[in-house]
Amino acid sequence: MKSKECRPDWSEQAPAPGTFRAIAKYGDPHHFKHPSDAWVKMMKDEFHMSDADFAVKRNEGHDPVVLNRAPALNPEQVGALAAIVGKENVTLDDYSRVKYSSAKTSEEILELRQGIIREVADVVVHPRDKHDVQKIVQYCDTECIPVTVYSGGSSCNFGCRPYKGGVSLVMSTHMNKLLDVNELNQVARVQPGMFGPAYEEALNNAPERFGSRRRYTCGHFPQSFEYSTVGGWVSTLGSGQASTYYGDAYDIVFSQEYVTPVGNFKTLDYPATATGPKVNDIMKGSEGTFGILVEVTMKIFRYMPENRQRFSFMYPTWEAAVDASREIMQSEFGRPAIYRISDPEETDRGLKLYGMPGFADALLSIKGFKPMRRCLCLGNVEGDRDYTRLVARKIRRIARNHGAIYLAGYVARKWEHTRYTEPYMREDLNDFGVLIDTLEAGVTWENLHRLHQGVRAYIKSRPGTICMTHASHFYPQGTNLYFIFIARMDLDEYVAFQSGIIDQMVKYGGTLSHHHGVGRLLAPWMESHLGKQQMAVLRALKRHFDPHNIMNPGGQLGLDEIPARR
Amino acid sequence: MKSKECRPDWSEQAPAPGTFRAIAKYGDPHHFKHPSDAWVKMMKDEFHMSDADFAVKRNEGHDPVVLNRAPALNPEQVGALAAIVGKENVTLDDYSRVKYSSAKTSEEILELRQGIIREVADVVVHPRDKHDVQKIVQYCDTECIPVTVYSGGSSCNFGCRPYKGGVSLVMSTHMNKLLDVNELNQVARVQPGMFGPAYEEALNNAPERFGSRRRYTCGHFPQSFEYSTVGGWVSTLGSGQASTYYGDAYDIVFSQEYVTPVGNFKTLDYPATATGPKVNDIMKGSEGTFGILVEVTMKIFRYMPENRQRFSFMYPTWEAAVDASREIMQSEFGRPAIYRISDPEETDRGLKLYGMPGFADALLSIKGFKPMRRCLCLGNVEGDRDYTRLVARKIRRIARNHGAIYLAGYVARKWEHTRYTEPYMREDLNDFGVLIDTLEAGVTWENLHRLHQGVRAYIKSRPGTICMTHASHFYPQGTNLYFIFIARMDLDEYVAFQSGIIDQMVKYGGTLSHHHGVGRLLAPWMESHLGKQQMAVLRALKRHFDPHNIMNPGGQLGLDEIPARR
Repeated sequence: MKSKECRPDWSEQAPAPGTFRAIAKYGDPHHFKHPSDAWVKMMKDEFHMSDADFAVKRNEGHDPVVLNRAPALNPEQVGALAAIVGKENVTLDDYSRVKYSSAKTSEEILELRQGIIREVADVVVHPRDKHDVQKIVQYCDTECIPVTVYSGGSSCNFGCRPYKGGVSLVMSTHMNKLLDVNELNQVARVQPGMFGPAYEEALNNAPERFGSRRRYTCGHFPQSFEYSTVGGWVSTLGSGQASTYYGDAYDIVFSQEYVTPVGNFKTLDYPATATGPKVNDIMKGSEGTFGILVEVTMKIFRYMPENRQRFSFMYPTWEAAVDASREIMQSEFGRPAIYRISDPEETDRGLKLYGMPGFADALLSIKGFKPMRRCLCLGNVEGDRDYTRLVARKIRRIARNHGAIYLAGYVARKWEHTRYTEPYMREDLNDFGVLIDTLEAGVTWENLHRLHQGVRAYIKSRPGTICMTHASHFYPQGTNLYFIFIARMDLDEYVAFQSGIIDQMVKYGGTLSHHHGVGRLLAPWMESHLGKQQMAVLRALKRHFDPHNIMNPGGQLGLDEIPARR
Repeated sequence: MKSKECRPDWSEQAPAPGTFRAIAKYGDPHHFKHPSDAWVKMMKDEFHMSDADFAVKRNEGHDPVVLNRAPALNPEQVGALAAIVGKENVTLDDYSRVKYSSAKTSEEILELRQGIIREVADVVVHPRDKHDVQKIVQYCDTECIPVTVYSGGSSCNFGCRPYKGGVSLVMSTHMNKLLDVNELNQVARVQPGMFGPAYEEALNNAPERFGSRRRYTCGHFPQSFEYSTVGGWVSTLGSGQASTYYGDAYDIVFSQEYVTPVGNFKTLDYPATATGPKVNDIMKGSEGTFGILVEVTMKIFRYMPENRQRFSFMYPTWEAAVDASREIMQSEFGRPAIYRISDPEETDRGLKLYGMPGFADALLSIKGFKPMRRCLCLGNVEGDRDYTRLVARKIRRIARNHGAIYLAGYVARKWEHTRYTEPYMREDLNDFGVLIDTLEAGVTWENLHRLHQGVRAYIKSRPGTICMTHASHFYPQGTNLYFIFIARMDLDEYVAFQSGIIDQMVKYGGTLSHHHGVGRLLAPWMESHLGKQQMAVLRALKRHFDPHNIMNPGGQLGLDEIPARR
């Protein structure tokens, strides 16, 4: 891009209330993050797009949401729900019914932009507390009314779509408080509908809010942090960007309270127990199909940002970056918090997109760090001051031993600034017919290269397709590969292409999902992936908790019949 | 004790083969560890025992085991089992039937010494491999023959007692091999019947055995290490003495293969996954009631004993020791591996029993470390060299800040030498009518003092009862309290007394078990402890896996009717 004149006319207007776009847009309606000039250049180069292609927007979703479908619930049933939560907490209008039946799955967004509405809830209910939830679940169980939970609405796999209609239960409207910080046990009791920033802010300010001696952090920072909730993290087994140190959502749950059709319970508050299979763990990742998480006690951590040590490196090759990372994770000197390595395509595109001075690029090339071979690594270390220094020093030493050059903390710091804002670009890309989506898979060190090469080969076999991959969330036994693909394609092609990628992920030894959960998107692969026996266990639990199949029915987790998506 | 002449006539004879004592004795039949003179003095003082009391042994269990109970299986059934595993792997003799129906529960031992035989297996079967196990389970399911697993036989809660008779399936006879070390993934695939020392030795010698580059450690060292098996650790949720760093058995399982009445499966090899509730975790701690663990892949760790840093401290009070320990566990600088704090009674008895020079005692007293107030702390740090030094330094600093004096690594080293041999003393104590037993409970920091005081008050309310307590296995959220009680009492009183202690444990906020598992001993408390809803989940899983209730039936985990013990 030579001049500002060529810059596409990115939308700068908050979507009009009541429109499809208001539902589809990511995050704050008034916040935008536009692709840089380098992004536009990349799209033009890769997708053979001209200025003309960036002149006309399509499927912007500016139409008001009109549903024209009478709720399947009768007035008596709606009245009964209103009697429980209060009239003001029951909504039946078209916009609410569609909004609280949609999340952030690419396909959902693209359909909404076209004004296509799939299955929706009959009624939207905002419970005020866990007693409301209990009464609602009891009533719905008696009446066989499906209940689907909506909390942050950031699902990227149709996790909030109420395939069988019924109630969309919105947890984030009222049930969004931090109830208690127990400093002795270092845990926080929180309502499931609390959003990430409010939760973290309250923990950071625990002395002022709860009279605690210290400040705390939740340790869980997924990319969706600003628009996802604590309950969602637990129900879908999320992972935060600092999970290599703090653990995945699974690891930081202390105890939980559930409302299920067969009864309510709270798991016990213990650091560890040997009293048979752990029901506290069985509930995690049940994605609303067993019952409703109404309260969760989370492990928290001392908040010591002043000790943070940032690092970044350039490795000569992907293999060197992977080998060094494995060495770091298995060396028993502690672990970094954030830790990522980008494959050659992501590295080079990143350098172009996010800026690297030309001379630095030339210098790297001279030193043998060639484009489409070199790999960027970035991260940080958190914790005690001497610990973070030790771990950072160890990481630098191992990196050097694997041929990396140290780029100091600059790149990591820069990345941190954009860590939550990348999803905002989707609106702009979609406006001009460009799709961006991601899939991710847990993988052992042994299968990492096979998975990376296999999935990448499939994606790149389609001409004009960008594929950027990084590994993030590390363990001594392996990591997670995160594939980002960008292409100019229509919805039909996209759905088939995505399905092909998932096939390759499973074929080459990845998990179906490392931290996005399953929802309905991945449900069709569940049985072949886990095997009939493991699926039978999940279905046995489902039958136990939800004999009338009212909890998020219609394919979630592959537990019952999976409806066609389109 | 003034002279050697007064020393009791401790047994130095290996039990005669075929006798009750041969079953009851702990560990190597030819190995003994006798109470020291200080121990004898303590017993005389506390229990008002005279030399005369140490002159006559009772209930030594020297009689040969005679059962006089025909197996409930018919010859056809026995023949069918023999056809599966080979004749040589099926035994029906009285001794085998009793031996492989008994473990190391105090009550079991005391009854065996009296020649009392409770429920026993009808037939003992030693499967050669997982295919044998599969055929046996299929056959027994068809014929409704109960199957109870015996592996190391170190259960202390009737975990191996076949209440409904049937088959005792002995995993440790043949299925005791390390199959594979995967250095890239840092995991080891192992058969469930492999004993701790063989497993650890093979990992330590991985370069010679498996051609690996490095040496490894299993990281799991329970007191029963020498006589417990990898499969037992997983099935009963054990914890090793170094669990504060390496994690509990639950944490170090990577994947598992099970044979169940409804089918066989292997969980997948992934470092993490978000594909619904984790069946890999659901199986852990199922204590043989869901199916039979036939292979397990365990996380392993770099073996670097040269970096080990040992430490020990004397704290002025229990409160100071607890506060410092909490600070250590929550400070985010890494964790020690072994870490223990002894309460005042354990500390003072330990000093007397294991020797502390008189002048040192005097010195401690002068410095304000008074008997029945001061508390001993010991442990070590494992891992990378710089890491262990850092963590040890941090621990010393926190200890000093809490008023402790540093006793260097001597006490920790001394403790390490006796870590596996303490159980050997039980024979000698029992010979003279003295009982020793332990109960343990996971507990949050918040409930620690309440639990300690509550349980201790109950135990000490019985005159002439020693109660030594330590905390071991630490977490940021709490720890485990381990109660050792020693008294001169008969079996009837013991059973009632033990039951009373368990009542107090639950009442004062402990888990029913931190790492001993449940078995049948703790089964009667399960439902009131976990609650009806959590128990219903475990029972739903049981029904799914084992519709004919053949897997370790008769009260294990409280899943079915709990028979009277005596």
